[in-house]
Amino acid sequence: MEAARIHAYGEHGLHLDSVPEPKIQGPLDVIVRIGGAGLCRTDLHILEGQWKEKTGVKLPYTLGHENAGWVHQVGSAVTNVAVGDPVIVHPLVTDGLCRACRAGDDMHCSNAAFPGITTDGGFATYLLTGARAVVKLDRSLHPKDVAALADAGLTAYHAVRKARPLLYPGTKAVVIGAGGLGHIGIQCLKALTPAEIIVVDRSDGALDLAKKIGADHTVRADGKAVAAVKELTGGAGAEVVIDFVGEGGAVEAGVGMLRRAGSYFVIGYGGNVHTPTIDIISTEINFVGNLVGTYNDLVELMTLAAQNKVRLHTKVFPLEGINDAIAALDAGRLQGRAILVPEKAM
Amino acid sequence: MEAARIHAYGEHGLHLDSVPEPKIQGPLDVIVRIGGAGLCRTDLHILEGQWKEKTGVKLPYTLGHENAGWVHQVGSAVTNVAVGDPVIVHPLVTDGLCRACRAGDDMHCSNAAFPGITTDGGFATYLLTGARAVVKLDRSLHPKDVAALADAGLTAYHAVRKARPLLYPGTKAVVIGAGGLGHIGIQCLKALTPAEIIVVDRSDGALDLAKKIGADHTVRADGKAVAAVKELTGGAGAEVVIDFVGEGGAVEAGVGMLRRAGSYFVIGYGGNVHTPTIDIISTEINFVGNLVGTYNDLVELMTLAAQNKVRLHTKVFPLEGINDAIAALDAGRLQGRAILVPEKAM
Amino acid sequence: MEAARIHAYGEHGLHLDSVPEPKIQGPLDVIVRIGGAGLCRTDLHILEGQWKEKTGVKLPYTLGHENAGWVHQVGSAVTNVAVGDPVIVHPLVTDGLCRACRAGDDMHCSNAAFPGITTDGGFATYLLTGARAVVKLDRSLHPKDVAALADAGLTAYHAVRKARPLLYPGTKAVVIGAGGLGHIGIQCLKALTPAEIIVVDRSDGALDLAKKIGADHTVRADGKAVAAVKELTGGAGAEVVIDFVGEGGAVEAGVGMLRRAGSYFVIGYGGNVHTPTIDIISTEINFVGNLVGTYNDLVELMTLAAQNKVRLHTKVFPLEGINDAIAALDAGRLQGRAILVPEKAM
Amino acid sequence: MEAARIHAYGEHGLHLDSVPEPKIQGPLDVIVRIGGAGLCRTDLHILEGQWKEKTGVKLPYTLGHENAGWVHQVGSAVTNVAVGDPVIVHPLVTDGLCRACRAGDDMHCSNAAFPGITTDGGFATYLLTGARAVVKLDRSLHPKDVAALADAGLTAYHAVRKARPLLYPGTKAVVIGAGGLGHIGIQCLKALTPAEIIVVDRSDGALDLAKKIGADHTVRADGKAVAAVKELTGGAGAEVVIDFVGEGGAVEAGVGMLRRAGSYFVIGYGGNVHTPTIDIISTEINFVGNLVGTYNDLVELMTLAAQNKVRLHTKVFPLEGINDAIAALDAGRLQGRAILVPEKAM
Repeated sequence: MEAARIHAYGEHGLHLDSVPEPKIQGPLDVIVRIGGAGLCRTDLHILEGQWKEKTGVKLPYTLGHENAGWVHQVGSAVTNVAVGDPVIVHPLVTDGLCRACRAGDDMHCSNAAFPGITTDGGFATYLLTGARAVVKLDRSLHPKDVAALADAGLTAYHAVRKARPLLYPGTKAVVIGAGGLGHIGIQCLKALTPAEIIVVDRSDGALDLAKKIGADHTVRADGKAVAAVKELTGGAGAEVVIDFVGEGGAVEAGVGMLRRAGSYFVIGYGGNVHTPTIDIISTEINFVGNLVGTYNDLVELMTLAAQNKVRLHTKVFPLEGINDAIAALDAGRLQGRAILVPEKAM
Repeated sequence: MEAARIHAYGEHGLHLDSVPEPKIQGPLDVIVRIGGAGLCRTDLHILEGQWKEKTGVKLPYTLGHENAGWVHQVGSAVTNVAVGDPVIVHPLVTDGLCRACRAGDDMHCSNAAFPGITTDGGFATYLLTGARAVVKLDRSLHPKDVAALADAGLTAYHAVRKARPLLYPGTKAVVIGAGGLGHIGIQCLKALTPAEIIVVDRSDGALDLAKKIGADHTVRADGKAVAAVKELTGGAGAEVVIDFVGEGGAVEAGVGMLRRAGSYFVIGYGGNVHTPTIDIISTEINFVGNLVGTYNDLVELMTLAAQNKVRLHTKVFPLEGINDAIAALDAGRLQGRAILVPEKAM
Repeated sequence: MEAARIHAYGEHGLHLDSVPEPKIQGPLDVIVRIGGAGLCRTDLHILEGQWKEKTGVKLPYTLGHENAGWVHQVGSAVTNVAVGDPVIVHPLVTDGLCRACRAGDDMHCSNAAFPGITTDGGFATYLLTGARAVVKLDRSLHPKDVAALADAGLTAYHAVRKARPLLYPGTKAVVIGAGGLGHIGIQCLKALTPAEIIVVDRSDGALDLAKKIGADHTVRADGKAVAAVKELTGGAGAEVVIDFVGEGGAVEAGVGMLRRAGSYFVIGYGGNVHTPTIDIISTEINFVGNLVGTYNDLVELMTLAAQNKVRLHTKVFPLEGINDAIAALDAGRLQGRAILVPEKAM
Repeated sequence: MEAARIHAYGEHGLHLDSVPEPKIQGPLDVIVRIGGAGLCRTDLHILEGQWKEKTGVKLPYTLGHENAGWVHQVGSAVTNVAVGDPVIVHPLVTDGLCRACRAGDDMHCSNAAFPGITTDGGFATYLLTGARAVVKLDRSLHPKDVAALADAGLTAYHAVRKARPLLYPGTKAVVIGAGGLGHIGIQCLKALTPAEIIVVDRSDGALDLAKKIGADHTVRADGKAVAAVKELTGGAGAEVVIDFVGEGGAVEAGVGMLRRAGSYFVIGYGGNVHTPTIDIISTEINFVGNLVGTYNDLVELMTLAAQNKVRLHTKVFPLEGINDAIAALDAGRLQGRAILVPEKAM
């Protein structure tokens, strides 16, 4: 089958290789025929070598960690899906046995594989995953339309889900960054909470889109953004700031937008949280890390998608066009999320 | 009456002045005859001028924000205490009307006064406070024995109370710093949770005390502390780290002791949280700010004190000896918390 | 001033009496000039004598516990409202000093008065209440349009607020009874949760209204209602049932609509919960009592009202028409909530 | 192998049959060599035919649902235990794939088997269970000493775990029934909460034991019990009542012991909750159903057992003596829990 693989760190694209199809090895294995696979900024970071030491994976291997498609083959003990079922694929293959799995915290499974990051991913005709990773899709949803919800969307949903108890009528939530993740985050906030939503972004286009999908207020991310948010919150700051950027001054500004006893959700990465402990205690603020999401989160997000409450803006590329998609993403030319579709699914 | 007042920032001690007694001004005012007032490191910081700009208070004024004694006089609308009642005094005088007060978050009251920080405090014969600040004491408790629980103890209790839901059987809690606050924190952890308690401190004396009051393991705060905690937690780190130090490398080390999805409680201050956002998201950790505690927290802490589950180590000084107490604290010569007792209560 | 008072239990109406205006007695007292006061089924129950023994109040006294208007006079220590402010009045006058008040549970205050139930209420020109009871209204809201939210609306909101954590995408909430409280409950569910809402009522009119304000499904409350709900929930039952009826078979049917581990919110009253303990444990269901709501709940509900997310259906009567309103309510002829408006506010 | 099986409902004992050993059939199967199996009152109820219709299981089959022992054989995909490991067995064999399993609610798994209730249980030499059901034991724990914690202990722990957030310093918890489950419940309350524990039982022996293992107060379950609890709680009632009896007047009395806004945990069964809805709403009380417990609960309970915080009172019988044990339990002659040990493990 065809697969887009990384051959060496530092190269500016992937190689379209012909590789053997994956095979069922364990009783809980599931092979998915890919209907669409999202391209993520993390894929660029992998190419750049940022994850080289964290993963220690051997090259070449297939990227693609936002996958959806149809069940192609199942192991002997798989009972939750059948061949032909349309599915979206949770990014982790988990063991279901450790405390984290048993508490629903899939991301903290002690024995997880992460296809597309640590093993072969979904920029290919077929993907090997596990029974615990596949979520059956409502018939109204097409794999290629939801694939990028598997990771980008799930991450945004997870953070909003954790913020939800803090957001009751009269509260304000600031969303920093209305791009791929942020525009899902806004829709999730709208669906789950009655909070007023304030969106901060550098791009007027992104702010326009934000308005259309639910932002109550938009603020240009310039030197006056903190003051603008303060004004929109009666001088007090917001109960919740959800930061999808996490670098380039976003954190410093974002912390300045927080209300006393407020919570800062860290999702984007690259920069640092650098805050004096006296500021943390004198206002009693919190920083909350966020890592992708749980399987149940993904099921809930698919419910919102089927109810048309969350919609992803995408641009489809044939798998052969992967390097065009990469170049477009790298150059900031993409409007919406790039979705790679293998020939067999076009 | 006598009062120990700050006359100028930068001086090394307070002045024993004769000042007029406070008077009831509002219907909810309460005047407490001081039985004991705790000396806190924050008092040194005030003398040094660290709070000068944050408070903007006019000198001279009376310090002392950890107060207990007996009700001396009450305003016309006070119904919860009567003259003669022994009481401990919550550090804030709150309005009971704002959302924070109504949700029990006294520390975030929009209209609070903080005697000893922003108005005259308890290093004096009498203290002016409010009906919402006084907690009636069980007859088994003497004001001078519990006074320092009003702030130091309350702060430790509050953090433990917030950490409690995270600490079930099999979890580990690391306490950094077993001094004035830390040794209360250890006793609160013991009373409220079944967690294994690991205490980290530079001083062997503090570690010995920690063992006696409930620490399951003690670790010297040197270059090998992180490794030692990792070993005590099977390589995984602790679910909760409670940092009573917050400076001098404590935070960096403490973050290294955290388990995936763990929570770091910031109480001590002076240094910075400085953590790459990628580390926060890839392990999904949290930083939780902590600021003193609520009135209900103080009531609960007094229950633990009456049940003999929390005991404070104190050293009594006559109020006239305030500058001896300050010097001893500054020089690290104090074992336990210094309690100032005015002549009238000796 | 004019006041509609109960003179004897068992009479079919109130008496319009001329009584002295209330006076400020304590420093936290607030006198409100009534703009509108809602008539509640509880007023009928009081007339019938059902509350005679529970309250032990001396007749005659003024009914009316759903009040809104303008601040007319304030006590010396009132800081949160000023004369002329439009306000809605929380049903309880609380002390702000007991644990319940300090934890935000106003309804469980140890020293509360309940105007309209235990002291003179708002079917009058003026009402005596307290500073802790008044919520300032957004300028877009008129007292007579929101008065009935003070109790009926607050009760519905409080139950929904407690149910909210159980209602994530994909869950179902059943509302039993789409009358005065229920139609607010439906709007609150819509504003606070992404749950699918199933409304059960005997009246087609009520079900039609339910559809318009947010019900996803409606079910006639007849012998087949349990089966209908089961079908709408894939055979499993609903995660949450909110029962605004609480008598006449509603509870038995409602419990049958619950999913395993589901929660039954009891609001309406009159009948019994009568369930074998084996049924409670073998499905691990919960029954949750609900009593009016907190002051913060009322603030949040006013936010939803100002955002136009919750709208009350009302019919205005002059205060002189109180007995017409009572007769109409008793006969089931009222569409929406009756609001009494004193002459001075017409 | 030997197995104690039920042949017909209504008989007064089990039959010791020679049956084939269980075989590994699926990749996640685990066969446990029984070290001890607890006898439970539910076994009597099964014999009496009370569960006949609920389970519809075909006779004969082997009873025994409180099992511990050593791993004897494992399926091909089992990774969490190895042959020879000492284990306690969670009562349910779950699929790990449904929402309940993924949220940690094992008891609500959509595809569970319940050995000893719906399939062959542990009154035998070997038991067939699954990888998701086995908890590895600390080396300090012997299977026959902890076996009864698998169900009776787990049920008590689960209820206490749910009650824990309600039990802070100063609160009171009433335990109704200090027998097999109750005496574990008391120890769990002691280990997890700072609440004062009030134990109510008919038997002086049970109350004496209760005192020894942590009860702060004991009350004879007679006509004056409600008044006695009211007195011990300053007239207010208890925040939490945990009812291990659930029949014979226990519920009516227990509800009378509740404080306003209190919670009633239903565990014992046989009787009914029969409460007017007006009483539920006017005091805003809750009824909480409880069904066994989660796998993570069992892990936590094993931690408490290894820490010697929870100890079970047992009486060992050889498996051949099963009918003696049944007769003793039925006649109320048993002190502590009967544990059946097969010949091979004696």
